[in-house]
Amino acid sequence: MAASSDFNAQIAVTLLRELQDLTADKHGAQRIAWTETWRRARAWFESKLEGLPVECHRDAAGNNWFTLKGASEKTLILGSHLDSVPNGGWLDGALGVMAGYAVLRYFATTGDGVPPVTIRLVDWADEEGARFGRSLFGSSAFAGTHSVEADRVRKDKDGIALEEALHDDGIDIDKIHNAAGERANACAYLELHIEQGPILEKHGLALGAVTGTKGVERHAITFTGQEAHSGSTPMHLRRDALSAAAKLALEIRSIATRHTDAVCTMGSLKTFPGIVTAVVGRVEATLDQRDLDSNVLAQMYDEAQQASEQFAAEEHCSVEWSRIWSIEPIPFHPQLIKFCEEAIHETSCEVFRLPSGPLHDAAEVSRLGIPTTMMFVQSLGGISHNRIEDTEEAHLILAVRAFHLLASKTMSWILHP
Amino acid sequence: MAASSDFNAQIAVTLLRELQDLTADKHGAQRIAWTETWRRARAWFESKLEGLPVECHRDAAGNNWFTLKGASEKTLILGSHLDSVPNGGWLDGALGVMAGYAVLRYFATTGDGVPPVTIRLVDWADEEGARFGRSLFGSSAFAGTHSVEADRVRKDKDGIALEEALHDDGIDIDKIHNAAGERANACAYLELHIEQGPILEKHGLALGAVTGTKGVERHAITFTGQEAHSGSTPMHLRRDALSAAAKLALEIRSIATRHTDAVCTMGSLKTFPGIVTAVVGRVEATLDQRDLDSNVLAQMYDEAQQASEQFAAEEHCSVEWSRIWSIEPIPFHPQLIKFCEEAIHETSCEVFRLPSGPLHDAAEVSRLGIPTTMMFVQSLGGISHNRIEDTEEAHLILAVRAFHLLASKTMSWILHP
Repeated sequence: MAASSDFNAQIAVTLLRELQDLTADKHGAQRIAWTETWRRARAWFESKLEGLPVECHRDAAGNNWFTLKGASEKTLILGSHLDSVPNGGWLDGALGVMAGYAVLRYFATTGDGVPPVTIRLVDWADEEGARFGRSLFGSSAFAGTHSVEADRVRKDKDGIALEEALHDDGIDIDKIHNAAGERANACAYLELHIEQGPILEKHGLALGAVTGTKGVERHAITFTGQEAHSGSTPMHLRRDALSAAAKLALEIRSIATRHTDAVCTMGSLKTFPGIVTAVVGRVEATLDQRDLDSNVLAQMYDEAQQASEQFAAEEHCSVEWSRIWSIEPIPFHPQLIKFCEEAIHETSCEVFRLPSGPLHDAAEVSRLGIPTTMMFVQSLGGISHNRIEDTEEAHLILAVRAFHLLASKTMSWILHP
Repeated sequence: MAASSDFNAQIAVTLLRELQDLTADKHGAQRIAWTETWRRARAWFESKLEGLPVECHRDAAGNNWFTLKGASEKTLILGSHLDSVPNGGWLDGALGVMAGYAVLRYFATTGDGVPPVTIRLVDWADEEGARFGRSLFGSSAFAGTHSVEADRVRKDKDGIALEEALHDDGIDIDKIHNAAGERANACAYLELHIEQGPILEKHGLALGAVTGTKGVERHAITFTGQEAHSGSTPMHLRRDALSAAAKLALEIRSIATRHTDAVCTMGSLKTFPGIVTAVVGRVEATLDQRDLDSNVLAQMYDEAQQASEQFAAEEHCSVEWSRIWSIEPIPFHPQLIKFCEEAIHETSCEVFRLPSGPLHDAAEVSRLGIPTTMMFVQSLGGISHNRIEDTEEAHLILAVRAFHLLASKTMSWILHP
């Protein structure tokens, strides 16, 4: 294997800039899945692989696979996504694809062009779910956790059905489960991504090894009191739903901070009737709770429920909970996390592990049982899903180098676990 | 003067039921000012005065006046309004007009039909402001506190201008100030109204003497923090605008309860971006503060501002205040409040005084300097502006009887202050 000093990390950044020029407007990246700009991005990317001994094809769920056959059929998958949110950033998703490209290109052009194990780069279809509200579309089809019946009826804001949009891309919604065929020989999965949060920056670090994706409990909470005239209703006779909800908005912070890394967020609170002259009769709020430990997650959910019932009782209101969505915590593979940590240490002399709050395609792969980890690189200001999303170029270079090292370590381990 | 045992209080209730049959649908009262149903209500009411020695006319602002000439030109005005909110109740406003009718009818049909002072009943135009958002329309024109330039541009939800609607009722918006001519000889103003709050019911009382209308400070408050991803942003790095607003929502209750009768209400709270997966970056809330004492009101406003700044600082947010509207407290006339208390005591053996949180036409008359008071009758459940608004019939009868006594006492006082 060639020394990693021959590895061209810069090409990933060069391609990222080229992709930005091709697909962003003044509001940011516009590579929304199942749109013309996304197709243009994918065609551009495929053109970059011309001339390399790489087999390219699209699977039944629209994921693009680029395979460099190795001496062994055992396979390392490197993956990420080219799609973006509307008015998104230049790095979210695309960085992982370009880093994978740099690694694939390195092994395809070094020595005899046959790496010890097979390397596949995957550009997952529709990670963001920006147009139809269904994130991790392609990776969930690969993992067999997709939901055809629920997806079939999804529509975009113009009323176009997901099924119809898929059809325009040559995808039959009833056959997306065939993407599972791509699992053959998969021994490990690696993904590089920007952190999309402020933790690495606050610690003054470029890179971090990701320990897994946090589990999520997401609920709608309704407090019901009694609408009343703001002028004629004495304070002690009120049944103010906003007071109960305000207590909960503050209490969830105590609940979260009792646990390292746990987060609880009330992201939406709506008041009804919501007019200046009426005591609030009803509040509809949302609660999003996340932790990497399923016991902690269950405990936080329980504590929030109990607190809400106490506050409702104190305010002579009632409270109802309704689950919006949940997913279990998905811990990554201990050995791969260790390799990731080593690769980072050898590249930047840093040692740091952190869980991922946001979900990623890696979560779908990991819960399928394929050993998985991710590497995070610092996000400036912790900002993502925005045109000002950015990372220092020096950090991007470090990240692509460390990711190459991680891939090398993982390939050795695949052969000699 | 005839003994009050000859007084027919029942007729007020009979007319209220008749009006309800004429103008309510299954959703409630529909006597919205400047609509056909309102005109029908007014025409019906005018027909009830036929045969009485009463002069009827409409003033320049659309107020309907019914005058029974007395031995003296000195005038007692009894007033209320026939208009309602959409889907309103059968008593709000209408009770006061029917009670005034019962009193007017009594003096017109007793003895020689010439009371010691002139009695005028006024049906104020558009007390509710339900269609154009301008409450106390007619009484403010009478009081000279109207605002033609602001009113001219008001439109209803269908885009019809207030000016146009007034024109359809034969009213020239540029001449509504001429309603001030109706003030001539006015020596006192009395108004009977349902409480629209729960205080009398909680005290087990039918009636209360109203000490004035509370002053109001009404503000829009914006807390600005930093929108952030709910999964990737640790609790201690958040600038959560909802946390600052929640603290204020709870603190205003402490601020209010330090003062008897004071109320503070956060009636609307909006979160931005207001999605389940984002820490709240901005909150737009409203605060409505009321008290009968202008010093208390000023102090509460100051305390809420200081608290909001403290909470914003604690949460690393900023806060801005913007006044929506305010009005000073309007205390009623001490002697008339005393007469009201006596009239209630003589009718129901109760003694109770309370301020009004909601504004009423009486406030416009009182701040003009005409001695004014109001009498409140219990509202079941404190509910108003709703089809289930109700008062026990026995309490309505008591109220109309006590109002008649109050009118008699006030007439004597007008002649011999």
